[in-house]
Amino acid sequence: MQTILRNAFVYTGDPAHRCIEKGALLLSGDRIDWVGPEADLPLGLDASARDLGGRVVIPGLINTHAHGGLSLHRGYCDDGDLFAWAAALAPTTSQLTLEDNRWGCYLAAFEMVRNGITTACDCARYGAGIFSSVASAIGMRSLSGSLANSPSLRTSGQPNWPAALEETKEAIQQRSGDGLSRFYLGAHSPYNCTPELLTAVKEAADGIGVPFVIHVAENRRELEIVQERHGRRPIDHLRHLGLLDRKSILAHCVWLNEEEIGILASSGAGVAHNPISNGKLASGVAPIPQLRRRGVAVGLGTDSTLSNNCLSIFQEMKFAVLMQRVTSLDGHALTARDALSMATREGARVLGWEADIGSLEAGKEADLVILELDHPLGLTPERVISDLVYAAGPHNIRSVMVKGRAIFEDGKFTLIDEAEIKGQIRNRYGRR
Amino acid sequence: MQTILRNAFVYTGDPAHRCIEKGALLLSGDRIDWVGPEADLPLGLDASARDLGGRVVIPGLINTHAHGGLSLHRGYCDDGDLFAWAAALAPTTSQLTLEDNRWGCYLAAFEMVRNGITTACDCARYGAGIFSSVASAIGMRSLSGSLANSPSLRTSGQPNWPAALEETKEAIQQRSGDGLSRFYLGAHSPYNCTPELLTAVKEAADGIGVPFVIHVAENRRELEIVQERHGRRPIDHLRHLGLLDRKSILAHCVWLNEEEIGILASSGAGVAHNPISNGKLASGVAPIPQLRRRGVAVGLGTDSTLSNNCLSIFQEMKFAVLMQRVTSLDGHALTARDALSMATREGARVLGWEADIGSLEAGKEADLVILELDHPLGLTPERVISDLVYAAGPHNIRSVMVKGRAIFEDGKFTLIDEAEIKGQIRNRYGRR
Repeated sequence: MQTILRNAFVYTGDPAHRCIEKGALLLSGDRIDWVGPEADLPLGLDASARDLGGRVVIPGLINTHAHGGLSLHRGYCDDGDLFAWAAALAPTTSQLTLEDNRWGCYLAAFEMVRNGITTACDCARYGAGIFSSVASAIGMRSLSGSLANSPSLRTSGQPNWPAALEETKEAIQQRSGDGLSRFYLGAHSPYNCTPELLTAVKEAADGIGVPFVIHVAENRRELEIVQERHGRRPIDHLRHLGLLDRKSILAHCVWLNEEEIGILASSGAGVAHNPISNGKLASGVAPIPQLRRRGVAVGLGTDSTLSNNCLSIFQEMKFAVLMQRVTSLDGHALTARDALSMATREGARVLGWEADIGSLEAGKEADLVILELDHPLGLTPERVISDLVYAAGPHNIRSVMVKGRAIFEDGKFTLIDEAEIKGQIRNRYGRR
Repeated sequence: MQTILRNAFVYTGDPAHRCIEKGALLLSGDRIDWVGPEADLPLGLDASARDLGGRVVIPGLINTHAHGGLSLHRGYCDDGDLFAWAAALAPTTSQLTLEDNRWGCYLAAFEMVRNGITTACDCARYGAGIFSSVASAIGMRSLSGSLANSPSLRTSGQPNWPAALEETKEAIQQRSGDGLSRFYLGAHSPYNCTPELLTAVKEAADGIGVPFVIHVAENRRELEIVQERHGRRPIDHLRHLGLLDRKSILAHCVWLNEEEIGILASSGAGVAHNPISNGKLASGVAPIPQLRRRGVAVGLGTDSTLSNNCLSIFQEMKFAVLMQRVTSLDGHALTARDALSMATREGARVLGWEADIGSLEAGKEADLVILELDHPLGLTPERVISDLVYAAGPHNIRSVMVKGRAIFEDGKFTLIDEAEIKGQIRNRYGRR
């Protein structure tokens, strides 16, 4: 079955940021067969056509770092830096059950899709399959897993390894078939995991051929702790343990020196940059321009609603630019194009999913967002790129498609009753 | 005529950030007569009651620095620091007619009200009365004026002084009667104005009893220019010229040393802080915690859609907090309560309007916003304050009232046909 999306302003998200002002996309099932000017559409197609009325089509946004299960507690503990915040949260978050986690994942996935996110990399403590099952029910794409931790190094919580390994293997077996779900194995961080645990998780990930996810170099105190314990800076510590390669996804990477930027560049590891979380938790400014100049793949992440408190890649794009400029005093330090690349194509590369998603190009799967942008002087490529990063938000979104299927249309989810789920959450959790 | 707003979660915006969970407001005409728990409502009132269904009521947000007339050109020149950006813009913005300015003001005022802004301080180059007339037509409150400049110091543009003085006097005469409009006299900046012009504008402002507005200490290069020309740093230069007192409104104030913070504190001048604009134009991070600790009134401003590119005080609140924290590495540097104060009560103080607006307290005018906030665990004061700063946006707004009159309800302006105005703009300006 073929579908034509016509009369569209297409931002392709290709490396040249090509825009097609009177554009069309030809979808075959879940894939994009063709993208180009409407006037050049192949003739004689047996396809239904949808007139987008000049609306803007962009690749689905990619959230490279999230903790959906925490969404029940949005805004709990708004102050203090990472370590004070994590300690204040622990008594509450360590009590969350798998069911709490599941309801949180629903809230997170709803919010992400409403913000044009079609793919998210989610981190749980337990329940590697939960985000995946919720995302798939909504029609969204996910890379899910649990982050192992060493209980001896934690202030609370129970060991989740090797339970996480078994859980993840089970989730892979049960859920990979749906075409939306992938999995990884992860470890919390070099300060919450022993070197033995880190190595065990990475070996297991390589053993089953999945990515490895870790938080690293997020906070200055972490840098000190790792140096004290292991005599190396965090990135060097990971390199030394053999944890850095093309299948490694590193969240944060704020505290890097030149040498570590070089280590990352030669390793091929990807970085999940979380500018709002890094601001709210007073972590610092990651050296994003320097990483990107060296060819490191950098995507954007929302982190959780406890450290943000939104799940919007629009906001992350804008703040990523502002944060670099305001600290470097360089008005070119990062641009709207850079931000859009991170939110789409580079994000896909970070997740190892670039063959299928991240841009609107023939051969990729049809993950896309249709927006109503209204520039007073009319739409041009410059204005669309500018609006997407600096002025757009969920109010502009009309439709979200994953694998060619509309999962969100005019404010409504098509596969699931959002109001019913939210009603259940209100009944169960409302009023404290 | 009295009206009761009942079954409301009231964030009063008083100095203690008091919230009333089952609250009510009693309005008499354009004023708030009473605020408190619904159970304590005075008996025997002859008033119509509106059930808010548990929605949240907050004081109308105050935008202490804007350039509405530029809204036609949203996002034009997104890169480069203040001076490069201003030079790149000048050929276009210097050509804007009064009519262009008027259409831009409509776009700006629509966007502000949609974002819960009930009062804005607007800066024009010509046409001191334009923003005021547009804002009043929509029902919004304004402090309007023009910024004088010295043509000898500009790369483009014609002298607008003393024309601005005559224009403003005329606007005061014609427009002050509507109860929504106030005016100021302003000068562009210490680098675009001669000392003689600065003094003349301030004297004229004092002569007619209106505030004085200026951009100052925005950019590092400005600091150097002013020091070279006048042998003093910008704030000291203004003090020396006698420009700093309780009726002075200073936009930006990024580049301040300890001594200048002291000068501001003892002068009583107010600061309009524009965190997003300061980020986008790579200006730097203003020392907001230090200013507030010394008692300086600090409000939030959006600046224009050319340096932002939204007109949302929600975004300014969030970025104000993030920017302070990410640069100080102090997770308490600025809090949600601080941001809300700046967006409401302190903003009113900056504009000299604190007797009438800035909080929901008996005796003030009824400028307020009704929001639908939906926290998964139910609303508490902590969660409402957190959501307002970190998670809310225009999608949460159900109603905006100014002086007791609903000017925006369920997505529609009540006094003006937004679609008709936007249609006119599209017909006139659309497609470049």
